[in-house]
Amino acid sequence: MSRIPRIVILGAGYGGIVTALRLQKQLNYNEADVTLVNKHDYHYITTHLHMPAAGTDKPDNARVNITKLIDEFKIDFVKSTAVQIRTEDKKIVLEEGTLSYDYLVVGLGGEPETFGIPGLKEYALNIRSINSVRYIREHIEYQFAKYKREPSCTDLLTFIVGGAGFTGIEFVGELADRIPELCKEFDVDPSLVKIYNIEAAPTALPGFDPELVEYAMNVLKNKGVTFKIATAIKECTPEGVVLATGEEIKSATVIWTGGIRGNHMLEEAGFETMRGRIKVDDYLRAPGHDNIYVLGDCSIVMSPEGRPYPPTAQISMQQAEVCSHNLVSQIRGSELKKFEFKPKGTVASLGRGEAIGIVGSRKIKGGVASVMKKIIDLRYLYIIGGIPLVLKKGRF
Amino acid sequence: MSRIPRIVILGAGYGGIVTALRLQKQLNYNEADVTLVNKHDYHYITTHLHMPAAGTDKPDNARVNITKLIDEFKIDFVKSTAVQIRTEDKKIVLEEGTLSYDYLVVGLGGEPETFGIPGLKEYALNIRSINSVRYIREHIEYQFAKYKREPSCTDLLTFIVGGAGFTGIEFVGELADRIPELCKEFDVDPSLVKIYNIEAAPTALPGFDPELVEYAMNVLKNKGVTFKIATAIKECTPEGVVLATGEEIKSATVIWTGGIRGNHMLEEAGFETMRGRIKVDDYLRAPGHDNIYVLGDCSIVMSPEGRPYPPTAQISMQQAEVCSHNLVSQIRGSELKKFEFKPKGTVASLGRGEAIGIVGSRKIKGGVASVMKKIIDLRYLYIIGGIPLVLKKGRF
Repeated sequence: MSRIPRIVILGAGYGGIVTALRLQKQLNYNEADVTLVNKHDYHYITTHLHMPAAGTDKPDNARVNITKLIDEFKIDFVKSTAVQIRTEDKKIVLEEGTLSYDYLVVGLGGEPETFGIPGLKEYALNIRSINSVRYIREHIEYQFAKYKREPSCTDLLTFIVGGAGFTGIEFVGELADRIPELCKEFDVDPSLVKIYNIEAAPTALPGFDPELVEYAMNVLKNKGVTFKIATAIKECTPEGVVLATGEEIKSATVIWTGGIRGNHMLEEAGFETMRGRIKVDDYLRAPGHDNIYVLGDCSIVMSPEGRPYPPTAQISMQQAEVCSHNLVSQIRGSELKKFEFKPKGTVASLGRGEAIGIVGSRKIKGGVASVMKKIIDLRYLYIIGGIPLVLKKGRF
Repeated sequence: MSRIPRIVILGAGYGGIVTALRLQKQLNYNEADVTLVNKHDYHYITTHLHMPAAGTDKPDNARVNITKLIDEFKIDFVKSTAVQIRTEDKKIVLEEGTLSYDYLVVGLGGEPETFGIPGLKEYALNIRSINSVRYIREHIEYQFAKYKREPSCTDLLTFIVGGAGFTGIEFVGELADRIPELCKEFDVDPSLVKIYNIEAAPTALPGFDPELVEYAMNVLKNKGVTFKIATAIKECTPEGVVLATGEEIKSATVIWTGGIRGNHMLEEAGFETMRGRIKVDDYLRAPGHDNIYVLGDCSIVMSPEGRPYPPTAQISMQQAEVCSHNLVSQIRGSELKKFEFKPKGTVASLGRGEAIGIVGSRKIKGGVASVMKKIIDLRYLYIIGGIPLVLKKGRF
């Protein structure tokens, strides 16, 4: 009997988990061995992390146990951290042990892109995992507790969010909702608390419809957020940030949401990368490697206008559909499919009951957009876990 | 019309609040002006602080708004911090302004007694106010969040409680109950968490019945507490504690419950003090000052065996009864009462469903003692706020 092909999927984010689920469905028994490798034993819903980070929802509502999603009779799950991709002998080095592959799916998450701004790596916090958002939530609460011991240190009540892209905007919306609760819990005068959202680009939510951006900024300003748009951060220090204008804002809490780059392992493995990402071929494969698919934060797909699509949950999931189809086709010797991104719209939450978005070509805002955001969240739970997961983790 | 006497009560702890409530009831209209001064606009239930400190109950369940307790038509309430007692011209200097008194009741809270152990003042935390216990709770949670970012720093999961008296024992009981919840919330292996309770005296709960002490220690050991009895702390550092034995225990969290001394203002005002406390006369007055009553942490009352009674809520409340009686008598020119402490028993909680105690001359332990502890708590709520307060803050 000839050996059946081994597929290794690195990372159980949007791309990895959906690829695993599709392969589980599409592959026949004994057509391939599929192994999913992930650092944690849970999948987390990155688009939901801004809520537990601000403390407006529990971290557990932003994650699902992987073994609840996959069928372990069909797919092996290895909880470990990948440390090296060795294309020359088709091996993945894990923190404990190694795995061999015939086909590889790189669904590894990205890393914060700090654009070389000094101090960001050392002193800023990032919204990027369950551990990091639990830390941010505790860190924020701790500043309130500290302030009550040292009431002269009002800087402890200043919170700086670097980046007014999707994550930055969604996070400040939640944080602004949380502040009144924290003020009540810790007996703090709300007028002492300051939230800054700082963005180097000439606008918040670059690339988004200007009318909706204006609406979003007004909603957030009314919740107490101060914007500094077209203002670069020059340096982050243990005492706060220094802006390109020379202005200094003192704070013990800087949260950086300004950018994502690909995983460092790709560069180390010898792939050609741009900001740590691989520009994939039409079939989502790394150039020169017909057996390596790259999805999500680690991949670059160009739009018809010749610009990389921003890495989102939406594109990752569409990539996973094509990736799983192509893997099955390769194994069966049938035809591969080209990947083409079909944008279905985007909704950004602005906190409780408020959001903005584009659905198809329609602009939506306020309560309608907020409901749409929840529908998108529930739809995702349904895709990965069916009705039981919707009932367990869905919130209305 | 001659001026009516002015009574100032400093501090709304057990002694101060009960004195205010009794005066409110006993004094007739226009017999005296009573002013209660307190740093916060709430009274807190010190005997309950170990729970919000560990995070097993909300801080709000350990405090009551003062204006809900007193009748503001009869008693003035001033929210301010007293900074100086001037006996020579009968004035109290507040952070904002001054108050004149004819009679003074010193019900100020004590301060941590560190016995000159280096570093305790700088690096250890104290269970002594709503602000301090919120800080301790947040600090503990923060260590768990930090540990998840730096899994090699297991010392972050070591918690040291200095002092195995009442507060220390009650706190470790709650903390041991909270740890499994925190481990679940932060995905931490419970076997990595360590709780040390360190006591210099030859036994935990010095002065308590040895059989009950043994029971208590067994309950707490089973919950994961490591005791170091008859072991002095030589030094507290930012990295933990150094014991007299030379042993070093690394930890980012040292909570000192080893002792209480009187308020620093008394020494500064020229009173003769022992550990900041005034040894009061038979009528609870500062020697040489017939118009100054001293209660609670700031007072010393000797037992028939010639040893100071430990300052407890129970003795403070009994002092308040005699103090208010004597104030009314002085104003009316009738006879004063001597204070005599009538110990009614003591119950120490050991966490959920467990306690030990002496009631009358009966030893109680386990569930019975735990229920008795709750009855004592409810009784106190009833004394200060009647049935409505029992219903609002009482927990069963």
